[in-house]
Amino acid sequence: MTKITPKILKGFRDFLPEKKAVRENIINVVKKVYESFGFLPLETPAIEYAETLLGKYGDEADKLVYRFQDCGGREVSLRYDLTVPLARAMAMYPELTKPFKRYQVALVWRAEKPQKGRFREFTQCDVDIVGASSLMADAEIIAVIYSTMRALGFSRFVIKINNRKILNGLISILGMDENQVLNIFRILDKFDKIGVEGIQKEFMEKGFKTEVAEKILGFIQTKGSNQDLLSGLKIFFAGDAEGLKGVGELEYVLGCLSEMGIPKENLEINLTIVRGLDYYSGTVFETIVSDLPGAGSVFSGGRYDNLIGMFCEKAIPAVGVSLGIDRVVTVMEELKMLPSRIVVSRVLVTVFDRTCREQSLKTASAIRKAGVNTEIYLKEESLAKQISYAYKKEIPFVVIIGPEEIKADQIIIKDLKSGRQERVKKDDVETILKITK
Amino acid sequence: MTKITPKILKGFRDFLPEKKAVRENIINVVKKVYESFGFLPLETPAIEYAETLLGKYGDEADKLVYRFQDCGGREVSLRYDLTVPLARAMAMYPELTKPFKRYQVALVWRAEKPQKGRFREFTQCDVDIVGASSLMADAEIIAVIYSTMRALGFSRFVIKINNRKILNGLISILGMDENQVLNIFRILDKFDKIGVEGIQKEFMEKGFKTEVAEKILGFIQTKGSNQDLLSGLKIFFAGDAEGLKGVGELEYVLGCLSEMGIPKENLEINLTIVRGLDYYSGTVFETIVSDLPGAGSVFSGGRYDNLIGMFCEKAIPAVGVSLGIDRVVTVMEELKMLPSRIVVSRVLVTVFDRTCREQSLKTASAIRKAGVNTEIYLKEESLAKQISYAYKKEIPFVVIIGPEEIKADQIIIKDLKSGRQERVKKDDVETILKITK
Repeated sequence: MTKITPKILKGFRDFLPEKKAVRENIINVVKKVYESFGFLPLETPAIEYAETLLGKYGDEADKLVYRFQDCGGREVSLRYDLTVPLARAMAMYPELTKPFKRYQVALVWRAEKPQKGRFREFTQCDVDIVGASSLMADAEIIAVIYSTMRALGFSRFVIKINNRKILNGLISILGMDENQVLNIFRILDKFDKIGVEGIQKEFMEKGFKTEVAEKILGFIQTKGSNQDLLSGLKIFFAGDAEGLKGVGELEYVLGCLSEMGIPKENLEINLTIVRGLDYYSGTVFETIVSDLPGAGSVFSGGRYDNLIGMFCEKAIPAVGVSLGIDRVVTVMEELKMLPSRIVVSRVLVTVFDRTCREQSLKTASAIRKAGVNTEIYLKEESLAKQISYAYKKEIPFVVIIGPEEIKADQIIIKDLKSGRQERVKKDDVETILKITK
Repeated sequence: MTKITPKILKGFRDFLPEKKAVRENIINVVKKVYESFGFLPLETPAIEYAETLLGKYGDEADKLVYRFQDCGGREVSLRYDLTVPLARAMAMYPELTKPFKRYQVALVWRAEKPQKGRFREFTQCDVDIVGASSLMADAEIIAVIYSTMRALGFSRFVIKINNRKILNGLISILGMDENQVLNIFRILDKFDKIGVEGIQKEFMEKGFKTEVAEKILGFIQTKGSNQDLLSGLKIFFAGDAEGLKGVGELEYVLGCLSEMGIPKENLEINLTIVRGLDYYSGTVFETIVSDLPGAGSVFSGGRYDNLIGMFCEKAIPAVGVSLGIDRVVTVMEELKMLPSRIVVSRVLVTVFDRTCREQSLKTASAIRKAGVNTEIYLKEESLAKQISYAYKKEIPFVVIIGPEEIKADQIIIKDLKSGRQERVKKDDVETILKITK
């Protein structure tokens, strides 16, 4: 038979146990924080009708949605994010109690050009509140970001907050066509990546006047304390209802966050934050780790009050955020915040020879039953090879049971780090637990 | 804009929070048992090159693999199981320490005809040992099944064990063409579903003689204690090396299981067990819950020593098992082993009115920080509506903070079950914890 070369697709990855275990640990921390705020898990399918997903993200994003015909000739898509499937589900199950608070940890797929740090398959951890128009919900999502970042071990990070209504207001003040708003947002979303010059170039390519581009760029780059910016924006938007509404919302959200006890230094009004997807309608935010700003946003999201209404008669307000696991792992790796290795087994029970096998199997079962993760060595090989396996896998303790030990009803427990070994009565589980703890 | 009807594809499912939380709990129990035996997690992509998957399962299964062309015109497939991707990975990373013990919990996709209990997307929890030809590995996988079933709360279940070499031996004793072996296996695998008559019919349709069909059916239905069956099989296969090898393997595995302390009543030699996929080569097993045998096998698997060799020069032995989460949930539901509801929040902090909001937000943060899952009510609504939300979500405690409480530095904690309410000093976290525990 011809051999098939083992390979994987570009932009896709295998996570070998050490990497996968680290990711699992991070996901568990995240889930625990989400649950501490009362969010429950939801699962939606990986495959949706294509029409469910398309037309929600914007033209450029639509091109990146994986599409194919299934066996029944239906146009289907792999999910591109977890937000649109949530919106579809919320329209499908109107009976769900609101506010509906859910989290979802799942794979999404995007047919992006593979490049450093950009993948075609990746895991998102989303948390969303549906059915609450109150801006307390926006604040809660930001509080969840804050608590998760802290739980992951970050202290120096900034949640950058803006509001799309502020940008809408700006665009209307500049007398620009409303239909251009989403185009402008998509260009501005690239600010961090392509900088002022890049933005100017894109504006020109799309046919915007230089002076308009400069005004927008000047506006979004305005710096100042949160309080100063709020005051300034109120003056700037005097008489513009939409802009003032955005400023008011920003102020309200910051007020709640302060009452929730979120430190000021972790919150920043930043007018360059736009978010690229079409569905955002109000508050938007990104989260930057201060020691590694170039890594991009770890937690990104915002309010999307018009998305669910695309699936049902009644508009249903919603706000949420997505954590990119790759992003957070990259940053934590870079900042040396990750354990060098996750070891799952505490004890390796070796098998001296066939005649001693029974006692080894019994002992392994007993130690495991007492609550210690325990492996038995599964190949018939020399003791040296068995111990070398424990070294390679960094299993801290090795149990040896030879004919002498069996005669004496004992086992030997060897601490591989110190090299010390102890003889213990084979039934003395308490001592075994004490040593291997 | 035209509304898009919110719907999902046939054979796909949404798991709303209550169902999803139950599944998550089960998966966590399973993972914990897997880790107690020293297995670590692995993640492989959902999408593989089509040639990686096709030609491994058998012709009928191949038809059920989701296939499409990706944006680069590559023939790709959604994974059909977790075993073939593992085999591909093991061939790709020969440097991994062996025995390599991994688990994987992930979605798989099969374009089956949707019907009761059969889905096109479902979650498998696989555990495999790669690089150990010793039958101790087969025994360990069966011990993992046993421990997981016990951890899930089952006591009355049977792990039915067979060995493909026994069936190979039978087929060679009957003088049948070796090339027919896989066809015969695929027919026999349906024994539980279609019964004796169904099998006879399929044998006839495939052109096998009636007497051959009857001999095979007679053989696989042989009943008896494990010891009697082993003795009988040894006599039956006298002189047939392959058959005897199978019997010897079965005996060895049962020997190890006995030494591991697995009760006899949970282990049964059952010659009808075949497994439908082509890649199995030795020990095969299924797990039936005694009170609900019709539900089918919960844990199914076996040894597949020739699969990884399809991807590399060297054959690498392997053995493993797959737990179908749907199957186990169905059985546990049917047997009333599942909690009626998973409640994640212990406390709902209500917001009396805008002037009291600050104290409510502060209190919610403080209780949550102390380790109690705590929600704040996120809509501006009447207290009655807020409390009704807690009832609906079965949140056991409600905190109320009105102007009087603020003046007195107190909060009210109401136990929704008993209706009793207590006033507590707002900073007395210890008492709050005691009440809400």
